[in-house]
Amino acid sequence: MRVYLAGPDVFMPDPHERAAVLKALCTKHGLVGVSPLDALAHEPEAWAGLHEPYRIARRNEAHIASCAALVANLTPFRGPSADVGTVFELGYMRALGRPVYGWTNSHTSFTTRTRAFLNMDDDSGDIDDNGMQVENFGPLADNLMIDSAIAASGGVLIRHPNCPDDEHWTEFGAFELCLATLRSRPQRP
Amino acid sequence: MRVYLAGPDVFMPDPHERAAVLKALCTKHGLVGVSPLDALAHEPEAWAGLHEPYRIARRNEAHIASCAALVANLTPFRGPSADVGTVFELGYMRALGRPVYGWTNSHTSFTTRTRAFLNMDDDSGDIDDNGMQVENFGPLADNLMIDSAIAASGGVLIRHPNCPDDEHWTEFGAFELCLATLRSRPQRP
Repeated sequence: MRVYLAGPDVFMPDPHERAAVLKALCTKHGLVGVSPLDALAHEPEAWAGLHEPYRIARRNEAHIASCAALVANLTPFRGPSADVGTVFELGYMRALGRPVYGWTNSHTSFTTRTRAFLNMDDDSGDIDDNGMQVENFGPLADNLMIDSAIAASGGVLIRHPNCPDDEHWTEFGAFELCLATLRSRPQRP
Repeated sequence: MRVYLAGPDVFMPDPHERAAVLKALCTKHGLVGVSPLDALAHEPEAWAGLHEPYRIARRNEAHIASCAALVANLTPFRGPSADVGTVFELGYMRALGRPVYGWTNSHTSFTTRTRAFLNMDDDSGDIDDNGMQVENFGPLADNLMIDSAIAASGGVLIRHPNCPDDEHWTEFGAFELCLATLRSRPQRP
Protein backbone atom coordinates (compact mmCIF):
# COMPACT_ATOMS: atom_id res chain seq x y z
CA MET A 1 0.00 0.00 0.00
CA ARG A 2 1.49 3.30 -1.15
CA VAL A 3 1.33 6.08 1.44
CA TYR A 4 2.17 9.72 0.71
CA LEU A 5 4.35 11.27 3.42
CA ALA A 6 3.26 14.91 3.68
CA GLY A 7 5.18 17.18 6.03
CA PRO A 8 7.69 19.95 6.56
CA ASP A 9 10.33 17.20 6.65
CA VAL A 10 11.33 18.43 3.18
CA PHE A 11 12.73 21.55 4.88
CA MET A 12 15.22 19.58 6.98
CA PRO A 13 18.90 20.30 6.33
CA ASP A 14 19.25 16.86 4.74
CA PRO A 15 15.74 16.15 3.41
CA HIS A 16 16.78 13.06 1.45
CA GLU A 17 18.22 11.46 4.58
CA ARG A 18 15.02 12.36 6.45
CA ALA A 19 12.89 10.83 3.69
CA ALA A 20 14.95 7.65 3.90
CA VAL A 21 14.29 7.42 7.66
CA LEU A 22 10.53 7.92 7.21
CA LYS A 23 10.41 5.39 4.37
CA ALA A 24 12.34 2.81 6.42
CA LEU A 25 9.71 3.12 9.16
CA CYS A 26 6.98 2.60 6.54
CA THR A 27 8.73 -0.54 5.33
CA LYS A 28 8.96 -1.76 8.93
CA HIS A 29 5.17 -1.45 9.16
CA GLY A 30 4.48 -3.14 5.82
CA LEU A 31 3.79 0.07 3.90
CA VAL A 32 5.42 1.78 0.93
CA GLY A 33 6.29 5.38 1.80
CA VAL A 34 6.21 7.91 -1.02
CA SER A 35 8.19 11.09 -0.44
CA PRO A 36 7.60 14.48 -2.09
CA LEU A 37 11.27 14.22 -3.09
CA ASP A 38 10.75 11.06 -5.15
CA ALA A 39 10.99 11.24 -8.92
CA LEU A 40 7.81 10.49 -10.82
CA ALA A 41 7.78 7.29 -12.83
CA HIS A 42 6.45 9.17 -15.84
CA GLU A 43 6.65 12.95 -15.65
CA PRO A 44 4.74 14.70 -18.45
CA GLU A 45 7.15 16.24 -20.96
CA ALA A 46 5.20 19.50 -20.82
CA TRP A 47 6.35 20.02 -17.24
CA ALA A 48 9.96 20.40 -18.33
CA GLY A 49 9.21 24.03 -19.15
CA LEU A 50 7.71 24.82 -15.75
CA HIS A 51 9.49 27.03 -13.22
CA GLU A 52 11.04 24.75 -10.56
CA PRO A 53 8.58 25.38 -7.67
CA TYR A 54 5.62 24.78 -9.97
CA ARG A 55 7.12 21.51 -11.21
CA ILE A 56 7.69 20.37 -7.61
CA ALA A 57 4.06 21.17 -6.79
CA ARG A 58 2.68 19.32 -9.81
CA ARG A 59 4.86 16.34 -8.93
CA ASN A 60 3.55 16.34 -5.36
CA GLU A 61 -0.04 16.40 -6.61
CA ALA A 62 0.72 13.45 -8.89
CA HIS A 63 2.38 11.53 -6.05
CA ILE A 64 -0.67 12.07 -3.83
CA ALA A 65 -3.02 10.88 -6.56
CA SER A 66 -0.89 7.73 -6.93
CA CYS A 67 -1.21 6.78 -3.24
CA ALA A 68 -3.93 4.94 -1.33
CA ALA A 69 -3.56 7.07 1.81
CA LEU A 70 -1.76 10.14 3.14
CA VAL A 71 0.10 10.48 6.44
CA ALA A 72 0.81 14.09 7.43
CA ASN A 73 3.41 15.38 9.87
CA LEU A 74 1.27 18.03 11.60
CA THR A 75 3.88 19.10 14.17
CA PRO A 76 3.46 22.90 14.31
CA PHE A 77 5.74 24.71 11.90
CA ARG A 78 6.57 28.43 12.14
CA GLY A 79 3.41 29.34 13.98
CA PRO A 80 0.57 27.64 15.86
CA SER A 81 -0.49 25.44 12.91
CA ALA A 82 0.94 22.73 10.73
CA ASP A 83 2.93 23.65 7.62
CA VAL A 84 0.56 25.08 5.00
CA GLY A 85 2.00 22.99 2.16
CA THR A 86 1.22 19.90 4.22
CA VAL A 87 -2.30 21.14 4.91
CA PHE A 88 -2.89 21.82 1.21
CA GLU A 89 -1.91 18.23 0.48
CA LEU A 90 -4.18 16.92 3.23
CA GLY A 91 -7.11 18.79 1.68
CA TYR A 92 -6.18 17.46 -1.74
CA MET A 93 -6.20 13.83 -0.61
CA ARG A 94 -9.37 14.34 1.40
CA ALA A 95 -11.17 15.52 -1.74
CA LEU A 96 -9.98 12.37 -3.53
CA GLY A 97 -11.98 10.45 -0.91
CA ARG A 98 -9.07 8.43 0.46
CA PRO A 99 -8.01 8.12 4.10
CA VAL A 100 -5.85 10.86 5.60
CA TYR A 101 -3.85 10.36 8.79
CA GLY A 102 -1.92 12.83 10.91
CA TRP A 103 0.71 12.81 13.64
CA THR A 104 2.14 15.61 15.72
CA ASN A 105 4.74 15.91 18.44
CA SER A 106 2.82 18.75 20.09
CA HIS A 107 0.39 17.68 22.79
CA THR A 108 -1.13 21.14 23.29
CA SER A 109 -4.41 22.17 21.68
CA PHE A 110 -4.61 24.52 18.69
CA THR A 111 -6.39 27.09 20.87
CA THR A 112 -3.67 26.97 23.52
CA ARG A 113 -0.91 27.35 20.93
CA THR A 114 -2.71 30.16 19.11
CA ARG A 115 -3.25 32.12 22.33
CA ALA A 116 0.41 31.67 23.29
CA PHE A 117 1.50 32.75 19.80
CA LEU A 118 -0.60 35.92 20.14
CA ASN A 119 0.59 36.55 23.71
CA MET A 120 -2.99 36.37 25.00
CA ASP A 121 -3.41 35.56 28.67
CA ASP A 122 -6.52 34.18 30.36
CA ASP A 123 -7.96 37.68 30.77
CA SER A 124 -7.57 38.65 27.11
CA GLY A 125 -10.93 37.41 25.88
CA ASP A 126 -11.27 35.84 22.45
CA ILE A 127 -10.30 38.75 20.17
CA ASP A 128 -6.69 39.30 19.11
CA ASP A 129 -4.90 42.60 18.40
CA ASN A 130 -6.11 42.53 14.78
CA GLY A 131 -9.72 42.25 15.90
CA MET A 132 -9.88 38.62 14.83
CA GLN A 133 -11.52 35.91 16.89
CA VAL A 134 -9.58 33.02 18.44
CA GLU A 135 -11.89 30.07 18.23
CA ASN A 136 -12.08 27.69 21.12
CA PHE A 137 -13.14 24.22 20.16
CA GLY A 138 -11.43 22.68 23.12
CA PRO A 139 -8.89 19.99 22.46
CA LEU A 140 -8.70 20.11 18.63
CA ALA A 141 -5.11 19.61 17.46
CA ASP A 142 -5.33 22.22 14.68
CA ASN A 143 -7.82 24.10 12.50
CA LEU A 144 -11.14 22.26 12.44
CA MET A 145 -10.84 21.40 8.73
CA ILE A 146 -7.78 19.30 9.57
CA ASP A 147 -9.12 17.39 12.58
CA SER A 148 -12.45 16.80 10.86
CA ALA A 149 -10.99 15.61 7.56
CA ILE A 150 -8.90 12.99 9.32
CA ALA A 151 -11.83 11.73 11.38
CA ALA A 152 -14.32 11.78 8.50
CA SER A 153 -11.94 9.95 6.16
CA GLY A 154 -11.52 7.10 8.62
CA GLY A 155 -8.00 8.09 9.62
CA VAL A 156 -6.53 8.86 13.02
CA LEU A 157 -4.66 11.86 14.39
CA ILE A 158 -1.98 10.73 16.83
CA ARG A 159 -0.52 13.27 19.25
CA HIS A 160 2.63 12.46 21.15
CA PRO A 161 1.61 12.93 24.79
CA ASN A 162 4.87 14.35 26.13
CA CYS A 163 7.49 14.98 23.47
CA PRO A 164 10.05 17.58 24.63
CA ASP A 165 10.22 20.69 22.44
CA ASP A 166 13.78 19.96 21.41
CA GLU A 167 12.76 16.56 20.07
CA HIS A 168 9.88 17.77 17.87
CA TRP A 169 11.81 16.93 14.71
CA THR A 170 13.55 13.74 15.85
CA GLU A 171 10.84 11.75 17.64
CA PHE A 172 8.94 9.13 15.61
CA GLY A 173 6.69 7.41 18.16
CA ALA A 174 3.50 9.17 17.00
CA PHE A 175 4.44 8.56 13.37
CA GLU A 176 4.93 4.86 13.97
CA LEU A 177 1.63 4.59 15.82
CA CYS A 178 -0.03 6.25 12.85
CA LEU A 179 1.54 3.75 10.46
CA ALA A 180 0.62 0.78 12.64
CA THR A 181 -3.00 1.96 12.84
CA LEU A 182 -3.17 2.50 9.09
CA ARG A 183 -1.71 -0.95 8.46
CA SER A 184 -4.24 -2.59 10.78
CA ARG A 185 -7.25 -1.18 8.96
CA PRO A 186 -9.05 -3.17 6.27
CA GLN A 187 -7.63 -2.22 2.88
CA ARG A 188 -9.95 -0.76 0.30
CA PRO A 189 -10.17 -2.69 -2.94
CA MET B 1 -21.88 30.71 -11.22
CA ARG B 2 -21.45 29.66 -7.59
CA VAL B 3 -18.12 30.64 -6.05
CA TYR B 4 -16.91 29.44 -2.63
CA LEU B 5 -15.41 32.25 -0.56
CA ALA B 6 -12.57 30.69 1.45
CA GLY B 7 -10.75 32.86 3.96
CA PRO B 8 -10.11 33.85 7.55
CA ASP B 9 -12.99 36.31 7.14
CA VAL B 10 -15.00 33.89 9.30
CA PHE B 11 -12.84 35.00 12.26
CA MET B 12 -13.92 38.64 11.98
CA PRO B 13 -15.80 40.04 14.96
CA ASP B 14 -19.00 40.12 12.85
CA PRO B 15 -18.43 37.33 10.35
CA HIS B 16 -22.00 37.42 8.99
CA GLU B 17 -21.68 41.12 8.15
CA ARG B 18 -18.33 40.38 6.50
CA ALA B 19 -19.86 37.55 4.47
CA ALA B 20 -22.64 39.89 3.33
CA VAL B 21 -20.04 42.40 2.09
CA LEU B 22 -18.11 39.73 0.16
CA LYS B 23 -21.31 38.32 -1.32
CA ALA B 24 -22.51 41.78 -2.41
CA LEU B 25 -19.24 42.22 -4.32
CA CYS B 26 -19.79 38.83 -5.97
CA THR B 27 -23.27 39.92 -7.04
CA LYS B 28 -21.82 43.15 -8.45
CA HIS B 29 -19.54 41.02 -10.63
CA GLY B 30 -22.28 38.64 -11.77
CA LEU B 31 -21.30 35.80 -9.45
CA VAL B 32 -23.03 33.96 -6.61
CA GLY B 33 -20.83 34.01 -3.50
CA VAL B 34 -21.12 31.04 -1.15
CA SER B 35 -19.93 31.63 2.42
CA PRO B 36 -18.71 29.00 4.88
CA LEU B 37 -21.40 30.45 7.18
CA ASP B 38 -24.26 29.58 4.83
CA ALA B 39 -26.66 26.82 5.78
CA LEU B 40 -26.67 23.78 3.53
CA ALA B 41 -29.78 23.25 1.45
CA HIS B 42 -29.91 19.62 2.56
CA GLU B 43 -27.72 18.70 5.48
CA PRO B 44 -27.49 14.95 6.09
CA GLU B 45 -29.40 13.96 9.20
CA ALA B 46 -26.45 11.93 10.40
CA TRP B 47 -24.48 15.13 10.91
CA ALA B 48 -26.81 16.27 13.68
CA GLY B 49 -24.83 14.09 16.07
CA LEU B 50 -21.45 15.54 15.13
CA HIS B 51 -19.49 17.77 17.49
CA GLU B 52 -19.92 21.38 16.28
CA PRO B 53 -16.46 21.93 14.70
CA TYR B 54 -16.75 18.68 12.78
CA ARG B 55 -20.17 19.64 11.46
CA ILE B 56 -18.85 23.03 10.36
CA ALA B 57 -16.00 21.31 8.51
CA ARG B 58 -18.29 18.82 6.76
CA ARG B 59 -20.57 21.66 5.74
CA ASN B 60 -17.63 23.59 4.29
CA GLU B 61 -16.55 20.56 2.27
CA ALA B 62 -20.10 20.20 0.93
CA HIS B 63 -20.26 23.90 0.02
CA ILE B 64 -16.97 23.64 -1.88
CA ALA B 65 -18.19 20.60 -3.78
CA SER B 66 -21.33 22.54 -4.76
CA CYS B 67 -19.39 25.42 -6.31
CA ALA B 68 -17.84 25.87 -9.76
CA ALA B 69 -14.80 27.79 -8.47
CA LEU B 70 -13.10 28.86 -5.24
CA VAL B 71 -11.76 32.32 -4.38
CA ALA B 72 -9.42 32.37 -1.38
CA ASN B 73 -8.44 35.29 0.81
CA LEU B 74 -4.73 34.52 1.16
CA THR B 75 -3.82 37.62 3.18
CA PRO B 76 -1.31 36.31 5.75
CA PHE B 77 -2.98 35.24 8.98
CA ARG B 78 -1.11 34.74 12.28
CA GLY B 79 2.22 34.01 10.61
CA PRO B 80 3.87 34.33 7.22
CA SER B 81 1.29 32.18 5.41
CA ALA B 82 -2.39 32.21 4.64
CA ASP B 83 -4.85 30.73 7.15
CA VAL B 84 -4.47 26.93 7.16
CA GLY B 85 -8.22 26.29 7.00
CA THR B 86 -8.32 28.35 3.82
CA VAL B 87 -5.34 26.45 2.40
CA PHE B 88 -7.00 23.10 3.18
CA GLU B 89 -10.05 24.25 1.22
CA LEU B 90 -7.89 25.41 -1.68
CA GLY B 91 -6.28 21.97 -1.86
CA TYR B 92 -9.69 20.34 -1.66
CA MET B 93 -11.08 22.30 -4.61
CA ARG B 94 -7.87 21.84 -6.59
CA ALA B 95 -8.27 18.06 -6.28
CA LEU B 96 -11.82 18.39 -7.60
CA GLY B 97 -10.26 19.80 -10.77
CA ARG B 98 -12.04 23.14 -10.68
CA PRO B 99 -10.45 26.60 -10.90
CA VAL B 100 -9.02 28.13 -7.71
CA TYR B 101 -8.31 31.85 -7.38
CA GLY B 102 -6.53 33.78 -4.67
CA TRP B 103 -6.16 37.35 -3.50
CA THR B 104 -3.94 38.89 -0.84
CA ASN B 105 -3.39 42.34 0.55
CA SER B 106 0.28 41.60 1.21
CA HIS B 107 2.62 42.57 -1.62
CA THR B 108 5.72 40.96 -0.06
CA SER B 109 6.98 37.53 -1.08
CA PHE B 110 6.55 34.45 1.08
CA THR B 111 10.33 34.24 1.51
CA THR B 112 10.54 37.85 2.68
CA ARG B 113 7.71 37.38 5.16
CA THR B 114 9.09 34.09 6.47
CA ARG B 115 12.55 35.58 7.05
CA ALA B 116 11.01 38.57 8.84
CA PHE B 117 8.87 36.23 10.97
CA LEU B 118 11.99 34.29 11.97
CA ASN B 119 14.03 37.45 12.58
CA MET B 120 16.56 36.41 9.94
CA ASP B 121 18.65 39.18 8.44
CA ASP B 122 20.53 39.09 5.13
CA ASP B 123 23.55 37.48 6.79
CA SER B 124 21.56 34.65 8.40
CA GLY B 125 21.80 32.19 5.54
CA ASP B 126 18.88 29.89 4.74
CA ILE B 127 18.64 27.81 7.95
CA ASP B 128 16.42 28.91 10.83
CA ASP B 129 16.96 28.39 14.57
CA ASN B 130 15.26 24.98 14.38
CA GLY B 131 17.66 23.84 11.68
CA MET B 132 14.96 24.06 9.02
CA GLN B 133 15.53 25.52 5.60
CA VAL B 134 13.86 28.71 4.40
CA GLU B 135 13.21 28.13 0.74
CA ASN B 136 13.75 30.95 -1.68
CA PHE B 137 11.69 30.69 -4.80
CA GLY B 138 11.78 34.40 -5.38
CA PRO B 139 8.49 36.21 -5.71
CA LEU B 140 6.05 33.41 -4.81
CA ALA B 141 3.16 34.74 -2.72
CA ASP B 142 3.04 31.71 -0.40
CA ASN B 143 4.03 28.04 -0.19
CA LEU B 144 4.62 26.65 -3.67
CA MET B 145 1.62 24.30 -3.47
CA ILE B 146 -0.63 27.36 -3.28
CA ASP B 147 0.86 29.46 -6.08
CA SER B 148 1.13 26.41 -8.33
CA ALA B 149 -2.40 25.14 -7.74
CA ILE B 150 -3.87 28.50 -8.68
CA ALA B 151 -1.79 28.75 -11.86
CA ALA B 152 -2.31 25.12 -12.89
CA SER B 153 -6.07 25.31 -12.36
CA GLY B 154 -6.39 28.30 -14.68
CA GLY B 155 -6.98 30.77 -11.86
CA VAL B 156 -5.13 33.95 -10.94
CA LEU B 157 -3.50 35.12 -7.73
CA ILE B 158 -3.97 38.87 -7.32
CA ARG B 159 -1.72 40.72 -4.89
CA HIS B 160 -2.59 44.25 -3.84
CA PRO B 161 0.52 46.25 -4.78
CA ASN B 162 0.52 48.70 -1.89
CA CYS B 163 -2.14 48.01 0.73
CA PRO B 164 -1.22 49.55 4.11
CA ASP B 165 -0.90 47.04 6.95
CA ASP B 166 -3.82 48.55 8.83
CA GLU B 167 -6.11 48.00 5.85
CA HIS B 168 -5.31 44.30 5.33
CA TRP B 169 -8.80 43.32 6.46
CA THR B 170 -10.81 46.17 4.96
CA GLU B 171 -9.44 46.57 1.43
CA PHE B 172 -11.28 44.75 -1.40
CA GLY B 173 -9.49 45.91 -4.57
CA ALA B 174 -7.58 42.66 -5.06
CA PHE B 175 -10.72 40.64 -4.28
CA GLU B 176 -12.73 42.53 -6.87
CA LEU B 177 -10.02 42.12 -9.49
CA CYS B 178 -10.08 38.39 -8.76
CA LEU B 179 -13.85 38.26 -9.24
CA ALA B 180 -13.71 40.32 -12.45
CA THR B 181 -11.04 38.00 -13.87
CA LEU B 182 -13.03 34.91 -12.92
CA ARG B 183 -16.17 36.37 -14.49
CA SER B 184 -14.34 37.16 -17.73
CA ARG B 185 -13.14 33.60 -18.25
CA PRO B 186 -15.08 31.17 -20.43
CA GLN B 187 -17.41 29.15 -18.23
CA ARG B 188 -17.03 25.42 -18.14
CA PRO B 189 -20.08 23.44 -19.20
